[in-house]
Amino acid sequence: MSTDSSAVPSSLLVDAIGTLVTNDPSLGQGAVGEMSDAALVVEDGRVAWCGPRGRAPAADVRVDAEGRCVVPGFVDSHSHIVFAGDRSREFAARMSGRPYTAGGIRTTVAATRAATDAELLEGARRLVREARAQGTTTLEVKSGYGLTVDDEARSLSVAARVTEETTFLGAHVVPPEYADDPAGYVDLVTGPMLEACAPRARWIDVFCERGAFDEDAARRVLTAGTARGLLPRVHGNQLGPGPGVRLAVELGAASVDHCTCLSAEDVDALAQAARRPRPTVATLLPGVDFSTRRPYPDARALLDAGAVVALASDCNPGSCFTSSLAFCIAVAVRDMGMTPDEAVWSATAGGARALRRTDVGHLAPGARADLVLLEAPHHVYLAYRPGVPQVAAVWKDGQLVAGDPGHRG
Amino acid sequence: MSTDSSAVPSSLLVDAIGTLVTNDPSLGQGAVGEMSDAALVVEDGRVAWCGPRGRAPAADVRVDAEGRCVVPGFVDSHSHIVFAGDRSREFAARMSGRPYTAGGIRTTVAATRAATDAELLEGARRLVREARAQGTTTLEVKSGYGLTVDDEARSLSVAARVTEETTFLGAHVVPPEYADDPAGYVDLVTGPMLEACAPRARWIDVFCERGAFDEDAARRVLTAGTARGLLPRVHGNQLGPGPGVRLAVELGAASVDHCTCLSAEDVDALAQAARRPRPTVATLLPGVDFSTRRPYPDARALLDAGAVVALASDCNPGSCFTSSLAFCIAVAVRDMGMTPDEAVWSATAGGARALRRTDVGHLAPGARADLVLLEAPHHVYLAYRPGVPQVAAVWKDGQLVAGDPGHRG
Ligand SMILES: [Zn+2]
Ligand SMILES: [Zn+2]
Repeated sequence: MSTDSSAVPSSLLVDAIGTLVTNDPSLGQGAVGEMSDAALVVEDGRVAWCGPRGRAPAADVRVDAEGRCVVPGFVDSHSHIVFAGDRSREFAARMSGRPYTAGGIRTTVAATRAATDAELLEGARRLVREARAQGTTTLEVKSGYGLTVDDEARSLSVAARVTEETTFLGAHVVPPEYADDPAGYVDLVTGPMLEACAPRARWIDVFCERGAFDEDAARRVLTAGTARGLLPRVHGNQLGPGPGVRLAVELGAASVDHCTCLSAEDVDALAQAARRPRPTVATLLPGVDFSTRRPYPDARALLDAGAVVALASDCNPGSCFTSSLAFCIAVAVRDMGMTPDEAVWSATAGGARALRRTDVGHLAPGARADLVLLEAPHHVYLAYRPGVPQVAAVWKDGQLVAGDPGHRG
Repeated sequence: MSTDSSAVPSSLLVDAIGTLVTNDPSLGQGAVGEMSDAALVVEDGRVAWCGPRGRAPAADVRVDAEGRCVVPGFVDSHSHIVFAGDRSREFAARMSGRPYTAGGIRTTVAATRAATDAELLEGARRLVREARAQGTTTLEVKSGYGLTVDDEARSLSVAARVTEETTFLGAHVVPPEYADDPAGYVDLVTGPMLEACAPRARWIDVFCERGAFDEDAARRVLTAGTARGLLPRVHGNQLGPGPGVRLAVELGAASVDHCTCLSAEDVDALAQAARRPRPTVATLLPGVDFSTRRPYPDARALLDAGAVVALASDCNPGSCFTSSLAFCIAVAVRDMGMTPDEAVWSATAGGARALRRTDVGHLAPGARADLVLLEAPHHVYLAYRPGVPQVAAVWKDGQLVAGDPGHRG
């Protein structure tokens, strides 16, 4: 094994791969395109070739996978990692059945407003590094803890420093100073805040849920964002039935996230939307239901109906502070009726669809060379060995960004 | 920060600890003995002092914890890591609802018998290293996949190479060649197999469950082992109600493991046994229930009744292939009604009681200096951040055995 992590070789051969998950798009939705005894060649940051071991074209540098598994880098399409403050005491109280009045999202909003840009950037960078070391090579990052024009704009500036998948979520919750004037807050979000934030964001998002934003407000937010050139996505149907899924499908959102409380009509709408050229993906966030002791979404029903399902972390300090897609995969298999193949596809190709990305989430020729070498022979190990760190090395755009491919097992 | 991982310094100061979990035994069962802004001094592999930061005695080497948390090394009192073969396909089939007839424990028995000693040792060492990197500094290891005199004896020889906590589990399952003569197999286990294995083991164990060994057989196995100088422990009440708990308490076993299906009488018996000077611990194995999609044990009922509860991995290739005590803690909090403090105590001090060890599982002066530095300010993060690798460094007997205490966050 010889590789130099400080330079991108012009071509790289990852050889002797025990199992390669390609998610080859030509095989259709949900197919992991598993190849045994495979090899993969990277050129100029893209997958140039994959196929049977021994037939690979020559490359400048060779990495020996020694029978281990290679999967596409995880595509985590939902996170809130631009924040300040610590809510571990609130978590401990919740899990211990103790009352705790000092918590909630407003704690994070207050701490985020009080933090410097440098502090927010340092926190986000730390979580990006942590996620990357666990195999996440594409990470969506939302604003939503600033909730003033300036604090949302600087949150998105921080987000844009760590990812290209930035989401303006001024409509996360109505901040305390607008408690008596929620309509005024929607005016702010769709007016000056959107003006300030749109240049820094790719996506517009809204928390469409009882206690946050109702259907009319959510529609106003998404429509205003779309008019300003942003692409819509929705938080919906987390805590109870509601209009989130219906609205997301109606507006052609790329994804509706949570989907824990769905009616039969919601499932049907997502199945119908899956047949469009650009589907509305059902993004499930098992870490949230894990960390809040709430019921899990019924992934099986969505899959059986034909919906496109993604798995994402929702990494945030309140309801779910995991950054581990492997953990989400294990829980999705245990508690949401997904097979290991479906869960791995959903955390890679599914996440890519939820971000309308065709260059990531799969390893067919032409795709970005975002790959994860596992310390395991097969991708089922991600569910089979819950909690065990199994990421040996991570490449993004063909460059080694975490771990060490040398066999240390 | 300066430390030399290749030599044991004569004294080591771990300074600026944000939260120190001592599990100070003088505080009683279940108390984590949390200290804020603490320091800890190690001398000759033992804890020499712990107390408030700034009052620590001088030491040769200083490690700066930079506000991070230090917990006792995990004591994993239940594992089956001496084996060969791969059962990931069986797991995938189970989780995908597909029939799979080639699996089961007999697959592992056949592969283990066919493996060389060197292969078994290499596999066990790899899993010990993996567990250690995740904070496990004491690990019990069972035989039970050999099921012949020679294969059990050599399994225990391998176990003894990697741990001092070795358990003879010839009575794991009746092997195929004794299918028509289960009583004959008990004769073998309690006769020549025990003779060959006792010198290599500290513990005698039996799987007391419908389909494995009934109460009479289990009593014979445990009594024979005890007569030969081994200490008893029991697998019981995993798949249904049964005599396991009752028998374990009657015979003064150190632990009865699984405890998923308990009657009110069983809970009461474990609560009574907790008042003895040497209690019978209820060891819960959440990873098994996670990976087999079975109901979790009711830790809350056991704790409320006053029983001593331990958490362990049961790391094995069939029903649970996790080696992560952090994962077990997170699941115990989410699904078994444990508070984060209780779960952390149970995975450290609880495991020590299940192994009748007073030198590990806590960090009061005199204890072994088995410590874990977390990449987190507080031990609640173990449950708060499920699946995220948070172990920065691990010391066993005062020696750095995994990670790097230099702050890389
Ligand atoms: Zn969210
Ligand atoms: Zn076991």
